Amino acid sequence: MTPFTAEFIGTFLLILLGCGVVANVVLEGTKGNGGGWMVITTGWAFAVFVGVVVASPYSGAHINPAVTVGLAAAGEFPWEDVPPYLLAQLLGAMLGAFLVWVMHKDHFAQTADSSLKLAVFSTEPAIMNKPINLLCEAVGTFVLVFTVLYFTDASLSEPETVIGLGSLGALPVALLVWGIGLSLGGTTGYAINPARDLGPRIIHSLVPIRNRRTDHWGYSWVPILGPLLGGLLAAAAYLVLA
Amino acid sequence: MTPFTAEFIGTFLLILLGCGVVANVVLEGTKGNGGGWMVITTGWAFAVFVGVVVASPYSGAHINPAVTVGLAAAGEFPWEDVPPYLLAQLLGAMLGAFLVWVMHKDHFAQTADSSLKLAVFSTEPAIMNKPINLLCEAVGTFVLVFTVLYFTDASLSEPETVIGLGSLGALPVALLVWGIGLSLGGTTGYAINPARDLGPRIIHSLVPIRNRRTDHWGYSWVPILGPLLGGLLAAAAYLVLA
Amino acid sequence: MTPFTAEFIGTFLLILLGCGVVANVVLEGTKGNGGGWMVITTGWAFAVFVGVVVASPYSGAHINPAVTVGLAAAGEFPWEDVPPYLLAQLLGAMLGAFLVWVMHKDHFAQTADSSLKLAVFSTEPAIMNKPINLLCEAVGTFVLVFTVLYFTDASLSEPETVIGLGSLGALPVALLVWGIGLSLGGTTGYAINPARDLGPRIIHSLVPIRNRRTDHWGYSWVPILGPLLGGLLAAAAYLVLA
Amino acid sequence: MTPFTAEFIGTFLLILLGCGVVANVVLEGTKGNGGGWMVITTGWAFAVFVGVVVASPYSGAHINPAVTVGLAAAGEFPWEDVPPYLLAQLLGAMLGAFLVWVMHKDHFAQTADSSLKLAVFSTEPAIMNKPINLLCEAVGTFVLVFTVLYFTDASLSEPETVIGLGSLGALPVALLVWGIGLSLGGTTGYAINPARDLGPRIIHSLVPIRNRRTDHWGYSWVPILGPLLGGLLAAAAYLVLA
Repeated sequence: MTPFTAEFIGTFLLILLGCGVVANVVLEGTKGNGGGWMVITTGWAFAVFVGVVVASPYSGAHINPAVTVGLAAAGEFPWEDVPPYLLAQLLGAMLGAFLVWVMHKDHFAQTADSSLKLAVFSTEPAIMNKPINLLCEAVGTFVLVFTVLYFTDASLSEPETVIGLGSLGALPVALLVWGIGLSLGGTTGYAINPARDLGPRIIHSLVPIRNRRTDHWGYSWVPILGPLLGGLLAAAAYLVLA
Repeated sequence: MTPFTAEFIGTFLLILLGCGVVANVVLEGTKGNGGGWMVITTGWAFAVFVGVVVASPYSGAHINPAVTVGLAAAGEFPWEDVPPYLLAQLLGAMLGAFLVWVMHKDHFAQTADSSLKLAVFSTEPAIMNKPINLLCEAVGTFVLVFTVLYFTDASLSEPETVIGLGSLGALPVALLVWGIGLSLGGTTGYAINPARDLGPRIIHSLVPIRNRRTDHWGYSWVPILGPLLGGLLAAAAYLVLA
Repeated sequence: MTPFTAEFIGTFLLILLGCGVVANVVLEGTKGNGGGWMVITTGWAFAVFVGVVVASPYSGAHINPAVTVGLAAAGEFPWEDVPPYLLAQLLGAMLGAFLVWVMHKDHFAQTADSSLKLAVFSTEPAIMNKPINLLCEAVGTFVLVFTVLYFTDASLSEPETVIGLGSLGALPVALLVWGIGLSLGGTTGYAINPARDLGPRIIHSLVPIRNRRTDHWGYSWVPILGPLLGGLLAAAAYLVLA
Repeated sequence: MTPFTAEFIGTFLLILLGCGVVANVVLEGTKGNGGGWMVITTGWAFAVFVGVVVASPYSGAHINPAVTVGLAAAGEFPWEDVPPYLLAQLLGAMLGAFLVWVMHKDHFAQTADSSLKLAVFSTEPAIMNKPINLLCEAVGTFVLVFTVLYFTDASLSEPETVIGLGSLGALPVALLVWGIGLSLGGTTGYAINPARDLGPRIIHSLVPIRNRRTDHWGYSWVPILGPLLGGLLAAAAYLVLA
């Protein structure tokens, strides 16, 4: 697997499982309907686990532009590899979201609330207040990237460490995202990953959904810019502290 | 333990605990009644953990025909061992489901809804649409087998790796199944394992259950064919990418 | 720490946390009131984790007479050490239950339902049917002891393995008990440990509780005999299969 | 990173995520509103995980005055380093709580119940009874510090062990705190950490909150003294048993 393929497949798996758990909880008639925040955050955590297990030995398993940019800014990843990583992540996220939509088509048809249908794809803040929403996304991503930078032996960017522990080496980042979701996801729904939000948002616009929300693009820059700021801030903090 | 015995016992434990947690959540009067999707998916995850811990050093702990067929197609398992593995898995699943029924007989007697009683044994889609149901089962199993093929050092098929980590070596596949259940199980109930569905379905037909559903056999091929297709697709993707 | 002290302290911690989580969920006015089966089973799982972490290097951390007897019957533990282990386990369980009662005195006073107050201490079946209840306790304990016997390198009885993994070596048995509780605990409440049930039951009789249940001793032999039978059956199966 | 900085940042992360999960569950309009005890305790568990991952190689990751004092009393940490550790922990906790408040300002504004708003910052007993509340805090912290002292190879105070396991070395203490919260947190809300309670309590007094509770300082010494007593008791028990 090339790094590009690994990032594409890793992000595809992340979004297939991540948007999948939201579909399971919010769409009408699913078996997990109404499962709540615990189901959603646990689902996203193991979505990260699966994506990292597969991609880690080949690309370091960023599967998140904020991680890629943050690692590059911290000097832990070459800047010239950033653009292909970001492209692979966006495309993988789009494919994952598309497959979630195909799998849940009948449930989309039964769901009247267009906000819930949008929520399967993209984040939306509990209370719209863009400066604070931006801060929340930046803080959540700061915790993600900063902690990843302090993973002992930087296990995410050095595959050999992950191999040493077997696939359990992917567990810390999953637990980290579990914690961020539980604790910091209550305000904006923790995109903390520009590809996670933008890729599915594009798919939401392209696939046929009855009574589709179209007024959400005004918010769409927040879960892109916020995570990037958070990742850069984490890199800056890491460099200052090192 | 021979590989046949290991697959039999491993799948027995998987189904005893897996169908057990469904019984605990859906049958009347149990202590976990109404526990929801989190209880069900967590129970299945550790059911996998237990089955893999016991069977892993002796058979590689497939405990799932889709894994056996997928590994064989990927060149990671000899085709001539496939038939005994599948037989052991089916028989183990049948014994597990039978024991769940014996343990919960009084709760079956108190439960009026025949669909809930069937649900203890076999999967049924939230919305019947066989082509999409088949796709959902194939996608869920694709994620299972594809990720297992990328477990570092292929820990599932090479026992020495599991030994190196102690029994924690069985944790990644449990977390993987936890994630698949949470995220991709909302439409069909994630059989993702032909033996898991067919074995208990046979038992459901054989044991005395008042007001038993008998109209479910028309769906029964979906959770057999879907997982097999998903496993083969995972093997194909693995071979293309390798 | 002597093995006796280790079993005493390990079982004390097990019951302090285990009966503690039941108190938190079933007594009136607690912060976890109504938390449900997920909270109870997760609490018991990490109760096992804590007890095993502390006791493991000194006694092998049986903290359960069914494990001690099962390991002895399997030839993995000397019979002459069984009586002191059992005594330490019973005394530790009694101290743990006593401390839970002291901590929750005000909540016991606010709770009217005497069955809920008993439930903090001891198990009671969802549907009274002693032969089936006995079977359920035997099956749950069989899964516990049988799987422990197959832990790679028998990590529970050989402390050096636990040391090799650090305290994470105590995680497999915690996950195992988590799974047993979720999947097999719905009928009898999974004592799966004679000391866990008898020790607190004695304390329930001794401390002052308003409107105390006294009719439960007729059931008390089931969660003693069932687990012992399950442990012996596991040892027999292990010896036949070895 | 100096040990002071590590304790400051580790405790900051602990409280940002820990008070964050309470905000997510109790404040009006958040995405995790009403998530219950499982969400709260899981959030605090991974809050510990994150704080320990980052701080562990630099300070041993106490991030809790009761751990610092307990380790010192057990002879596992030099007394002269205690004051700067405690100061760093308090300051880190204050910064974490402040950021939680900023992130959730709009949700504070929508929440009428002043007790819920206080609960984001500090603990309050379910039933006020200071001697028993003190006991509960002491018992919870005893379990924390006593078990930490028995972590094999004392992984918390000897960074090289954590490195050996990668960042998974921070998992045992997270599971321990998960268990304490589930099992022993039902009465007082398990401060089990003087900095966790006092730091946010000070911030609660300083930031503008409409209809703020001011009558809670009379209880504030309990979650300071109780954890310190529990930590010292754990050290004493450890020294007696060693």
